[in-house]
Amino acid sequence: MPVFGRFEWNGAPQYAEIEGDTAFFIDSPFDWMNDRSIKRSGESAPLAGLTILAPVSPPKLFAIGLNYSDHAKESGKDVPDVPLMWFKSTAAIIAQGETIEVAYPEHRTDYEAELTVVIGRTCRGATEENALDFVLGYTNGQDISDRDIQKSESQWARAKSFDTYAPLGPFISTDLDPQNVRVQSLVNGEVRQDGHTSQMIFPVRKLIAFLSEAITLQPGDCIMTGTPEGIGPIREGDVVETRIGDLAPLTNPVRTRTR
Amino acid sequence: MPVFGRFEWNGAPQYAEIEGDTAFFIDSPFDWMNDRSIKRSGESAPLAGLTILAPVSPPKLFAIGLNYSDHAKESGKDVPDVPLMWFKSTAAIIAQGETIEVAYPEHRTDYEAELTVVIGRTCRGATEENALDFVLGYTNGQDISDRDIQKSESQWARAKSFDTYAPLGPFISTDLDPQNVRVQSLVNGEVRQDGHTSQMIFPVRKLIAFLSEAITLQPGDCIMTGTPEGIGPIREGDVVETRIGDLAPLTNPVRTRTR
Repeated sequence: MPVFGRFEWNGAPQYAEIEGDTAFFIDSPFDWMNDRSIKRSGESAPLAGLTILAPVSPPKLFAIGLNYSDHAKESGKDVPDVPLMWFKSTAAIIAQGETIEVAYPEHRTDYEAELTVVIGRTCRGATEENALDFVLGYTNGQDISDRDIQKSESQWARAKSFDTYAPLGPFISTDLDPQNVRVQSLVNGEVRQDGHTSQMIFPVRKLIAFLSEAITLQPGDCIMTGTPEGIGPIREGDVVETRIGDLAPLTNPVRTRTR
Repeated sequence: MPVFGRFEWNGAPQYAEIEGDTAFFIDSPFDWMNDRSIKRSGESAPLAGLTILAPVSPPKLFAIGLNYSDHAKESGKDVPDVPLMWFKSTAAIIAQGETIEVAYPEHRTDYEAELTVVIGRTCRGATEENALDFVLGYTNGQDISDRDIQKSESQWARAKSFDTYAPLGPFISTDLDPQNVRVQSLVNGEVRQDGHTSQMIFPVRKLIAFLSEAITLQPGDCIMTGTPEGIGPIREGDVVETRIGDLAPLTNPVRTRTR
């Protein structure tokens, strides 16, 4: 089962299939959805020398709230009857190694590790039974959140949409059971969140069926599926690491935004 | 001052400058932001024979809530201290003449006419003084809203993001004073909303400064700037018309979604 990445190559973003330490460039990972085949361009490069980009440039970045009961409890909120969705700004996405820039260091700004689903083909009205057929794969996501703003505004979109508040990556794995992986945030090497996707209130197949009843999902759309308990603040000098199942970890340093 | 549109032309979306009854095709309306010049391709067509597309395909579709005090009052909500923002699904956008498909006819589903700003160039940290320099122009927007869902979910994004719930267009006018135009919704020819952008709590220059403090605005991003009082329900068979200032009106029929 392939692993896909996106890199800077000859001055432009280029998708690749990753095998061992090598990136084999391809036209599009979405070809995989048609006939489970991938067309390599013939060019390749060692991973070590490449600049990693966010693994996809999504048309829409869905976020799901309160999808783990232990996190709903720590947030003092009731578990919702149906999945609670909103959109994060796609301009907030940063890649592996890029810096989370805390906009207001006087606010509490939190990490939130989230299994992130990457949609592979256009999806309307999926059923729970066929929902996973529309998934290209999975990656690590962080739903960085300004709690002061989130508490003071009824809509959460702004608190969670500052530029750099959506780390994503490094790669897309096509081989992961979405309800059977551990979800961790580490700050400076110390485990702070340690949940498991088996604890999700609405599993990925339900989320996709629910969202696609209302909204057409497009290739590349990402769904951040909610965070387990253990959220906490980050500040300048910290390094946030996201670990989900066997995925290559996502690492992002933190600094205060300069104006 | 030019008026821009987007049409189906040779099987693909194509921007045009509109003069009288003719569309003169162009590479991009965003060229206008650089040196106030437009490169016509040499091809043109009578407007009457063309399929009108939404005037832009925005990376992000911002919505602003409760930006007119009379509407905040009719909604039973307090006027916010800072602009209240969220994102609508860009997949919800439909063009002039396209049909609003009411997903749940048993719910109350409302029209909301809104002056919509189209961003022309990348914008970070605009000031109120220079904010309008980042605007390409203005168009009509409707923030169609499922009130039953909006009342039952803390986040409004889903209630306002069903496919077809973001009519936009028909064209982009570069010549409009954003705080000096009338905003109307007509249903079946009868005026239902009749506000004026001078009544906005946060004028467009403030919205752009506020949003771009948090989020990088990109060329094509649209900002729906809130609706005046007079909101009300639509149902199968209705025709919704949006009239803002001198803009060509936006007309959309309504039907119940078929599954």
